[in-house]
Amino acid sequence: MDIAKINNLIENHELKVAVFGTGRIGLPTALMYAKAGYKTIGVDINENLIRDLRNKKTFIDEPGLPEILSEVIDRNLIEFTIDFEYAIKNSNVMIICVPTPVNQNKIPIFTAIEDVAKKIGILLRKDQIVINESSVSPTTIETLIIPIIEQNSNLKINDDFGVCSCPERADPGNIVDNWDKVARIVGGSSDDVGKMIVKLYHNISKAEIVQVSTPGTANAVKLTENIFRDVNIALMNEFAVLYEKLGIDVKEVIRGSSTKYNFQPHYPGPGVGGPCLPANSYYIIKDAINVDYIPFMIRVAREINDRMPAVVMELIQNALNFTHKSLKGSIITVLGLSYKANIKDVQISPALKVIQLLNEKQANIQIWDPYYKGENVLGYPVGNSLEESLQNTDCIVVLTDHKEFYDIDLKKIQKNMQKTVVLVDSRNIYEISNLPQNIVYCGVGRKIRKI
Amino acid sequence: MDIAKINNLIENHELKVAVFGTGRIGLPTALMYAKAGYKTIGVDINENLIRDLRNKKTFIDEPGLPEILSEVIDRNLIEFTIDFEYAIKNSNVMIICVPTPVNQNKIPIFTAIEDVAKKIGILLRKDQIVINESSVSPTTIETLIIPIIEQNSNLKINDDFGVCSCPERADPGNIVDNWDKVARIVGGSSDDVGKMIVKLYHNISKAEIVQVSTPGTANAVKLTENIFRDVNIALMNEFAVLYEKLGIDVKEVIRGSSTKYNFQPHYPGPGVGGPCLPANSYYIIKDAINVDYIPFMIRVAREINDRMPAVVMELIQNALNFTHKSLKGSIITVLGLSYKANIKDVQISPALKVIQLLNEKQANIQIWDPYYKGENVLGYPVGNSLEESLQNTDCIVVLTDHKEFYDIDLKKIQKNMQKTVVLVDSRNIYEISNLPQNIVYCGVGRKIRKI
Repeated sequence: MDIAKINNLIENHELKVAVFGTGRIGLPTALMYAKAGYKTIGVDINENLIRDLRNKKTFIDEPGLPEILSEVIDRNLIEFTIDFEYAIKNSNVMIICVPTPVNQNKIPIFTAIEDVAKKIGILLRKDQIVINESSVSPTTIETLIIPIIEQNSNLKINDDFGVCSCPERADPGNIVDNWDKVARIVGGSSDDVGKMIVKLYHNISKAEIVQVSTPGTANAVKLTENIFRDVNIALMNEFAVLYEKLGIDVKEVIRGSSTKYNFQPHYPGPGVGGPCLPANSYYIIKDAINVDYIPFMIRVAREINDRMPAVVMELIQNALNFTHKSLKGSIITVLGLSYKANIKDVQISPALKVIQLLNEKQANIQIWDPYYKGENVLGYPVGNSLEESLQNTDCIVVLTDHKEFYDIDLKKIQKNMQKTVVLVDSRNIYEISNLPQNIVYCGVGRKIRKI
Repeated sequence: MDIAKINNLIENHELKVAVFGTGRIGLPTALMYAKAGYKTIGVDINENLIRDLRNKKTFIDEPGLPEILSEVIDRNLIEFTIDFEYAIKNSNVMIICVPTPVNQNKIPIFTAIEDVAKKIGILLRKDQIVINESSVSPTTIETLIIPIIEQNSNLKINDDFGVCSCPERADPGNIVDNWDKVARIVGGSSDDVGKMIVKLYHNISKAEIVQVSTPGTANAVKLTENIFRDVNIALMNEFAVLYEKLGIDVKEVIRGSSTKYNFQPHYPGPGVGGPCLPANSYYIIKDAINVDYIPFMIRVAREINDRMPAVVMELIQNALNFTHKSLKGSIITVLGLSYKANIKDVQISPALKVIQLLNEKQANIQIWDPYYKGENVLGYPVGNSLEESLQNTDCIVVLTDHKEFYDIDLKKIQKNMQKTVVLVDSRNIYEISNLPQNIVYCGVGRKIRKI
């Protein structure tokens, strides 16, 4: 492999880049390469998506992204296509950013990345580099992707081509802003390939670029940091359920513990959603099973977080019971659909799970989420205003901690309502001391009380 | 209860303080009260301890502590006694700092604090305040200690006397230095009692003093922050064992993950020791069982950490096996006895567990720990120097990450040794790239290799 040649292309900004997958990770990645002055091709199997992108339209609700899309199209730095062959033939570096979800049985599905690897393998030329940004298990690149490319290309890793892991570490809602701030982890199929890709990322990001020894190590880094979050949220969920039984307010406890220098707060809630956290643990579990090892903690954390919608259901039933009502026939106002605050994204959102459970119990559901105003989300209509969703409600359930919900005037709601306001605050966003008189309130880890 | 009177005593530094238990927590606490100008009585059941303290001698190896002990004795601000009656009769505030260990079956033993509470109860006067600094489960103060005091005194909580939790948050080795830095958590039997004790602590510490709503909440804060550590160390131990099987270096992974803004590093090792962490989880488990709740994560974390000495034994056997040796008859050099770095303390130290297991397998053990030079620790003699403990060794096992061990000249050891150096680094303190040629090396989460 001619490392010097590729290094030259990087330095002279003559390197051509193809990004496979133009979704929430692939599109920002492609745009950042283009913005840095590299001729970039965005590739996807979704024709409508590609047509929209050519017309400067994107469904991805990331601050700053539409402006960059428009700019790099105008500057002729990016093109979008469904033609994989064209993209592979016209690029030096190929970046894979495809979904790697888990199925209903929690089995990781890596077929999208396998498909791209196979297509790349068939057309691969000497001195091309493949970078994977998709989240995969630590062994995936070395034991699955590199063999697929070698078999389909008849070329040899490191002698003829290079492979690198540079797992995305994006924070949805802050992807553009974080681009120059959050360090990237690079693990190459050889030390030379790694060094080269470090150089490349230095050209597109001002953030720290950290080289690790192998692609698998880079993926392990990504999974470790996300599983750290999943486990710590699970721990706080475990504490929340226990402290509620002991009559202790979990929010007060976490606030207290946060004054200790070596404590990092995480918060209980209705569960853990999004494309990464609920799936990443299962990648590790998959690799662990292959070496006859059961990662108990990681597994238990998943179970705890997955059961939180059921815990919220119990809170709702208890709160209604407090006012002599059943779920069946009651009007439940759901506040928030997104899996995290201040973004428009319902991927694996625990709110959807709670709504499904409410539906099974024949509750009447009224939804308000300012990010989905007037839309229909997976069959559920979202109201046009907070006021509309509160009409005749028997119980308000906060499922997302959107900033808009903190400022809701509970006193006014209480005043306008003909009946007792019942509030189930699964994100513990309200201060008990600020709640209006006569409201029935509970949270995850906060016992039910009439104020 | 005459809150105004006690507040006056606090402000005028006329308050008299008795501290029950003059060990690792009680002694510094008593000294700090005395140093702040409050007449203080240190009480213990151990006559020898009290005699030593009167002679300005302490076994507690805390930087700065002997100087303060000497100073407050000279200034006549402190006295030490085994006479509980004298202490109770001559104090306004009584602080309990006694051990609350778990027994061999992991059952929390709160008899020491119960005993003190009973003695206090029998002699209690109106307007006295009891503060507990000992680690206990969240329900202990409200459901065990206050009732014991009420029954024995025939006085009524809050009407006649006050109780407060202010759990110690000491970091052994840094207790004096942290006194004015680490926030304290105060939960009183009433809001007034809490406020008063906040005022008191402001007079003896420059740190933030945080009032929480109940004594149980204060204890929950303490347990939550320690269990957070136990769980995260367990998670890294789980990752370590898995990554070693996958051929990935856990230290490299943790270093990589630490570049993410929301990741807090914890480190794998031979287990978790000390008086707090291994016990605190069982306090929570005890309270949880009483309300029919099983905290799976907290329990699993304990199991993982408790099994780490067995993991280290496996590493030692594998490393010896690499050089065709059995444990039986081999000379094993143990580096480090303390449960944590840079302190002299072997309470529940995983090093002792590893030594016990080595002993069972009839290995010949040579120990070096600079903090126990030439001493006999639980029947094991500690050498007089590193060199002495290395004589004819077959395997060096690092069990504590004392700063002295980082600088060991492995190259020189390798040169002087007639055989291959085998190094089991259970704290992963050495950089692989700095290891001398021909050494056989492994760590917790770092696969065995001959360099």
